[in-house]
Amino acid sequence: MPDKVLVYSRFPKAQLTRFGERYEILNAAGQRPDEAFAAGDLADIRAMIAAGGAPLGGEVMDTLPNLGAIVCYGTGYDGIDLAAAAQRGIAVGHSPGANAASVADIAVTLMLAAVRRLPVADNYVRSGDWAGRKPSPMMRPQAGMRGRKVGVYGMGEIGRKIAARVAAFETEIGYFSRTRYDDLPYHYLPSLAALADWCSVLMIAVRAGADNVNAVDADILRRLGSDGFVVNIARGSVIDEPALVAALTDGTIAGAGLDVFTKEPHAPDALTALPKVVLAPHLGGHTLESHVAMQDCVLANLEAFFAGRPLAYPVAARSN
Amino acid sequence: MPDKVLVYSRFPKAQLTRFGERYEILNAAGQRPDEAFAAGDLADIRAMIAAGGAPLGGEVMDTLPNLGAIVCYGTGYDGIDLAAAAQRGIAVGHSPGANAASVADIAVTLMLAAVRRLPVADNYVRSGDWAGRKPSPMMRPQAGMRGRKVGVYGMGEIGRKIAARVAAFETEIGYFSRTRYDDLPYHYLPSLAALADWCSVLMIAVRAGADNVNAVDADILRRLGSDGFVVNIARGSVIDEPALVAALTDGTIAGAGLDVFTKEPHAPDALTALPKVVLAPHLGGHTLESHVAMQDCVLANLEAFFAGRPLAYPVAARSN
Repeated sequence: MPDKVLVYSRFPKAQLTRFGERYEILNAAGQRPDEAFAAGDLADIRAMIAAGGAPLGGEVMDTLPNLGAIVCYGTGYDGIDLAAAAQRGIAVGHSPGANAASVADIAVTLMLAAVRRLPVADNYVRSGDWAGRKPSPMMRPQAGMRGRKVGVYGMGEIGRKIAARVAAFETEIGYFSRTRYDDLPYHYLPSLAALADWCSVLMIAVRAGADNVNAVDADILRRLGSDGFVVNIARGSVIDEPALVAALTDGTIAGAGLDVFTKEPHAPDALTALPKVVLAPHLGGHTLESHVAMQDCVLANLEAFFAGRPLAYPVAARSN
Repeated sequence: MPDKVLVYSRFPKAQLTRFGERYEILNAAGQRPDEAFAAGDLADIRAMIAAGGAPLGGEVMDTLPNLGAIVCYGTGYDGIDLAAAAQRGIAVGHSPGANAASVADIAVTLMLAAVRRLPVADNYVRSGDWAGRKPSPMMRPQAGMRGRKVGVYGMGEIGRKIAARVAAFETEIGYFSRTRYDDLPYHYLPSLAALADWCSVLMIAVRAGADNVNAVDADILRRLGSDGFVVNIARGSVIDEPALVAALTDGTIAGAGLDVFTKEPHAPDALTALPKVVLAPHLGGHTLESHVAMQDCVLANLEAFFAGRPLAYPVAARSN
């Protein structure tokens, strides 16, 4: 008999195929386990697969009396109440770095598309306005990337990959993170405010947590300046979204590139109405190769757990 | 009295300001000089500023009996009949490398946006389809950049800057150009066909000329394969545009990013209807810093010419 694994969050079916080949899957698909399944079905479930960003507190854990492991599909685990898990002796694992290249790629894609106004440009061609030589104030030359100071907030695996990519665009790279890394060739700034003063493009790559909710607020955005851009591929919680809308609307900053939002899958109408933002539906890690890598981590975690070993990729103390 | 300079092509007014501070400008704005001005006004004009991509043959040169220099605003000079200019003793100058960083940035922007389907993603969020959890087949995970083989066609200044940027995305870089450069850390392929066989993303960075009209044709596109992308920031003439439309429509390749077209400012309806292409209105070099750099080159060329010296940036024999 294969071990039983509960899938807590809603995932596209194709992403669960490999788990189903190995385990008996009970797919709650975003419902509470005790609403999706009878208590008898849940009694012998010892492991659960979850998306790390969705809230998962003690009351959900308690629907599975024998739960021993929560395995996050992806690098994030900010939705998991780690204290509640620890109290119950539940190990929490994730997929560190598995999607870092794909997420860093989207960060740079959003940065370039925002700075060079790609969606506006694409629409200018598609609409026939270019062919009609219709003037477009949005298409006037703007400052590009060369010589820009780009600030990376958070220097974990994704932050490092963002920095390595952006440096190739003839920019200067600075960063702020909890830890200063002497092995990195980038300029260290001692606070987020100092980073925002220094740079004109702020790339948010910090691991989201209770201590950085709304960390990028009206003050930080003002420090970026009217030629400033903010790019967020971390979590919507790190930006004060109403402050961002206000800063974009009144020209406090020049633009933004956003893969994440406060209340996904909803992006505020005030954002979707703005041509100076570039939007993506949280697809940072959403490539074939990163899904395979994330699934590898999930399977390695489950295999270790059911073999009685420590998780292969436990969530670690924060360092970025 | 300031020297008189004729502006042949149509440029936004803001791009001519610095020239007007130094010279007396006669702006033909895209008309034939002898249609825009009386013959008497043209008799003492010795220098002309032109966009390098627009046709400029001997019959136009002959409207200015004392023309001694054609100075191209930008790196390209493919529209200039160099033989006709040489016959008439007219020097031709351009702005080499001035916009290379900006153009390379757009090449990478288009590459990333095409591979990660950014316009589709942006529209998926903006339209409310994401919020409505409306399934989108276009948003299924695709192969990303990591591990891809990216081929650069043309290894001049722009090609080198493209290669340096794309290498930071954990890709392999190959190139084909007339010259093999032993100082470059990239894989050399002996022909465009061999390059297309080897890579899945083809970046066109070759200087356009009579010898590469329609060089990227149905055969080359077929070699890229169904996961293949083509990005063109050079000139529309280098791609067989109907073959590209066909290859995109029938799935021979996966997508394209285009900043240039055969008949600008017109992009074929068959292209603008396709969501798998990303389009831009020839804005590669269109940043504030690259306009300043291009204007610097134009002014340096004019100053040298009027001082009786050789042009500061004459068009050179092709090497890429």
